[in-house]
Amino acid sequence: MDFSTQFNTFVAHTEKALGELLPPASTRPGRIHEAMRYSLQAGGKRLRPVLLLAAADLFAGEKHDPLPAAVAIECVHTYSLIHDDLPCMDNDDLRRGRPTAHKQFDEATALLAGDALLTHAFDLLARHYPSEPGFALVRVLAEAAGSQRLIGGQMEDLLAEKKTDATADQLEFIHLNKTAAMIEAALVLGGLTRGATASDQAALRAFGRELGLTFQIVDDILDTTADSTTLGKTAGKDAKAAKTTFVSLHGLEGARRFAREHTNAALVALTKLPGDPAFLRQLVETMAVRKH
Amino acid sequence: MDFSTQFNTFVAHTEKALGELLPPASTRPGRIHEAMRYSLQAGGKRLRPVLLLAAADLFAGEKHDPLPAAVAIECVHTYSLIHDDLPCMDNDDLRRGRPTAHKQFDEATALLAGDALLTHAFDLLARHYPSEPGFALVRVLAEAAGSQRLIGGQMEDLLAEKKTDATADQLEFIHLNKTAAMIEAALVLGGLTRGATASDQAALRAFGRELGLTFQIVDDILDTTADSTTLGKTAGKDAKAAKTTFVSLHGLEGARRFAREHTNAALVALTKLPGDPAFLRQLVETMAVRKH
Repeated sequence: MDFSTQFNTFVAHTEKALGELLPPASTRPGRIHEAMRYSLQAGGKRLRPVLLLAAADLFAGEKHDPLPAAVAIECVHTYSLIHDDLPCMDNDDLRRGRPTAHKQFDEATALLAGDALLTHAFDLLARHYPSEPGFALVRVLAEAAGSQRLIGGQMEDLLAEKKTDATADQLEFIHLNKTAAMIEAALVLGGLTRGATASDQAALRAFGRELGLTFQIVDDILDTTADSTTLGKTAGKDAKAAKTTFVSLHGLEGARRFAREHTNAALVALTKLPGDPAFLRQLVETMAVRKH
Repeated sequence: MDFSTQFNTFVAHTEKALGELLPPASTRPGRIHEAMRYSLQAGGKRLRPVLLLAAADLFAGEKHDPLPAAVAIECVHTYSLIHDDLPCMDNDDLRRGRPTAHKQFDEATALLAGDALLTHAFDLLARHYPSEPGFALVRVLAEAAGSQRLIGGQMEDLLAEKKTDATADQLEFIHLNKTAAMIEAALVLGGLTRGATASDQAALRAFGRELGLTFQIVDDILDTTADSTTLGKTAGKDAKAAKTTFVSLHGLEGARRFAREHTNAALVALTKLPGDPAFLRQLVETMAVRKH
């Protein structure tokens, strides 16, 4: 199967499982379940579930279905987007061309729908796995989503926005935690559903870290170099907001060099994993040269 | 040990554990950990941790320390208060005589601190228990805090506030889920740390349900009958807001009869539990006649 067929197959499995593993909108109170589904089923790249499913496929260990974990990680990602979009945070009216949750419903419903998706992620893990590997999945997810990683990255990002002289250290903290943490977790969760060893988990984590940083640096580069049409969103936003980025700190060439370094480090981490890493290798390479 | 000495001992153990089991305010990013601690360490009755510790004491089974679970349930309770106080929800400026989190910090920080406390609850369970009983603790907590219980009750409460003719059925749904769910969970979690059987868990749950409803009905009665000084908060708020309560639906005598019925049902549930139920019996009886 070629890369994009494989990618689309992972996405199709994820979309089907999302529909099945959320309470139906008819469950009381209907409004909260409607709002949870509205945001979760709004499309998107589904990068984290795809990574989780691809990581699971590397291993020949015990066959626990990785799909409930894939839905769980997408629930956490979606909750973080709903809360980030709220007026007190980024105050965004649109996400993927549709009204954000608080615009479609109201702020209170959006707040609660985010809370509910976060809680549902842990509920999914608790219901769909036996304690081994389920308890390890809970530990990995709680840590990645917690105050020192996903939420910590978001907090630091808010603090950095208030000044124009964020440091390289602060930028790294934000990206390692706001972006890379959940990418690492997706890969480790996938591995854990199939019995990944401690050293497999370390390699998956290293790969995720480098992939997450590559993703973020390329994002910063595209904001400078792409036009809005190609990008599918407003280009030049970062410079306009005088936001500290890899490009503002290191220049365009410096950022490109960083992106290459992290891409290479990701490819090295892949060599330490069992199974056929062709899909993940191509994913990194595709991400490094993406245009939007 | 008499009832109030025992109660205060449970509270003292909880307060000490709260301080120890939250990341220090010096952990990066400091602001999020400061905000988590500000709200969690604001005092309060600590009813849920006390119930958890008292339930654990009924059992002579394996001695897993119930304190991390007690901190976890207080984290979930505190997160729900922080989010309920936000401007888009109840818009409260004060909680227990101190500025609410979004007043002391800002809305974004309060939102994230709530998210972080919810996530930290699962992290605590995952770190401080072995998979048995830890995984069962996760399952009970995720269900009680989820979209069909705690969050569902809050959603239904918001929906009910928009109209003045909420039904008895709606009121029951709100109280069973917004109030009783976490009280039930506290008791079951406590039992699970000490090897409670399925029938023990059912009795703990039944007790919690009746205790939660008693608590809520007495709250409604006090809002009508007490003066603000005794109550320690504004009395008559519900009637002023034309809010549907047990008193508005069933009259004062009807509400008092309901309170007695639920108190008795709670005492019956207690007889099905092992160990010495003196503390929990006295807790119910104290709650039924409380004046604030």
